[in-house]
Amino acid sequence: MNDNPFEVIKLKIRAFAEQRDWDQFHSPKNLAMALNVEAAELLEHFQWLSQQQSSSLDTETLAEVAEEIADIQVYLIRLADKLDVDIVAATEAKMEKNVQKYPAEKVRGQSKKYTKYQD
Amino acid sequence: MNDNPFEVIKLKIRAFAEQRDWDQFHSPKNLAMALNVEAAELLEHFQWLSQQQSSSLDTETLAEVAEEIADIQVYLIRLADKLDVDIVAATEAKMEKNVQKYPAEKVRGQSKKYTKYQD
Amino acid sequence: MNDNPFEVIKLKIRAFAEQRDWDQFHSPKNLAMALNVEAAELLEHFQWLSQQQSSSLDTETLAEVAEEIADIQVYLIRLADKLDVDIVAATEAKMEKNVQKYPAEKVRGQSKKYTKYQD
Amino acid sequence: MNDNPFEVIKLKIRAFAEQRDWDQFHSPKNLAMALNVEAAELLEHFQWLSQQQSSSLDTETLAEVAEEIADIQVYLIRLADKLDVDIVAATEAKMEKNVQKYPAEKVRGQSKKYTKYQD
Repeated sequence: MNDNPFEVIKLKIRAFAEQRDWDQFHSPKNLAMALNVEAAELLEHFQWLSQQQSSSLDTETLAEVAEEIADIQVYLIRLADKLDVDIVAATEAKMEKNVQKYPAEKVRGQSKKYTKYQD
Repeated sequence: MNDNPFEVIKLKIRAFAEQRDWDQFHSPKNLAMALNVEAAELLEHFQWLSQQQSSSLDTETLAEVAEEIADIQVYLIRLADKLDVDIVAATEAKMEKNVQKYPAEKVRGQSKKYTKYQD
Repeated sequence: MNDNPFEVIKLKIRAFAEQRDWDQFHSPKNLAMALNVEAAELLEHFQWLSQQQSSSLDTETLAEVAEEIADIQVYLIRLADKLDVDIVAATEAKMEKNVQKYPAEKVRGQSKKYTKYQD
Repeated sequence: MNDNPFEVIKLKIRAFAEQRDWDQFHSPKNLAMALNVEAAELLEHFQWLSQQQSSSLDTETLAEVAEEIADIQVYLIRLADKLDVDIVAATEAKMEKNVQKYPAEKVRGQSKKYTKYQD
């Protein structure tokens, strides 16, 4: 039995959508939009906070933020399912790429130019 | 040994950030911004496509989309780590909430009003 | 007297923020976040619609969409004010650049590759 | 002759799209997506900056930010044109609504709860 949580959640979302006949709305285009909407709802919680405040959320806000994180995760898994993308494999591959792209000895302490190392 | 991929990836990102002394930039506020930027890079691939086209991407575009999915997953896991949120638990809880909120027998086939059932 | 609507709105927003002592929250970083949040609220109205449906909104949805457009315009003018950017001049310059970048005779009818002409 | 810059820009964008036969891609749904993509490109410039740094951009970054502001303005005017929304009227109406919603004497100095006054 597969207990990889990505697989478990993927199958639950599939069943959820099928039972409601919502599959018809779940084109990758639409799912990418929905994911962006949820990402912005997450962003909204932080928009007027200082960086320091964003690290010490009150209990209520933290619960709301956790729910937004869940919404994003749901749409990300759903989108990957629709495109037949293996999220874990894609993530491991991208992290390996990042390790090559940003050699620690080269970028360490380069805070001022951090932005320039990002794409 | 924990082989939950969320945990494995979380620890890799932690090490990646520590080795580069980038932890200082990873406030929840900044990470929420970075996640939105990556989400929009995903969106960009779909902006001029029809829904049908978005379901049949060419190989090159699919590889780029998979990379954006990975970027989003990385920042989502990093943000959750910083806020001490358990993504899997939050996602399972949110899906249970959705099951209650959108009873299948009530919303099935309600395609026209689908939007109104979403929040 | 200046009746350029960009100027009129800019001054109204300034007064609005000053009267509420909200200027302290209006760093460019925060305003860029708020603008993204409003842009996603606009996006939300369209996420499950077909392209055709998005062109024939009902009266209620159109009124809500108009309000989101207004919210985006307000934050865009506010951000430009804070950075001392002349939106009209910047827009005219960018459009001139686009005219050079996408020569009509070259890109016309290139619908399939439209995405590749965008950056 | 109408020298309202919103009108001048609107007509220029119309001509630009017509000359390239790009009107077919400009459904409100797609334009809302493109606007979000541009908004995130703006956000990207600020994601790792402190709020203070975001107020004192170097000349090169400021020029890039001004270009992103222009891109957003172009898509906002184009979308409003497609939906037959009068941006200036919508903005004035929304600001009047905000004046009613956030009475200065009630919200002034309420920095901690600023978020709660926003929607």
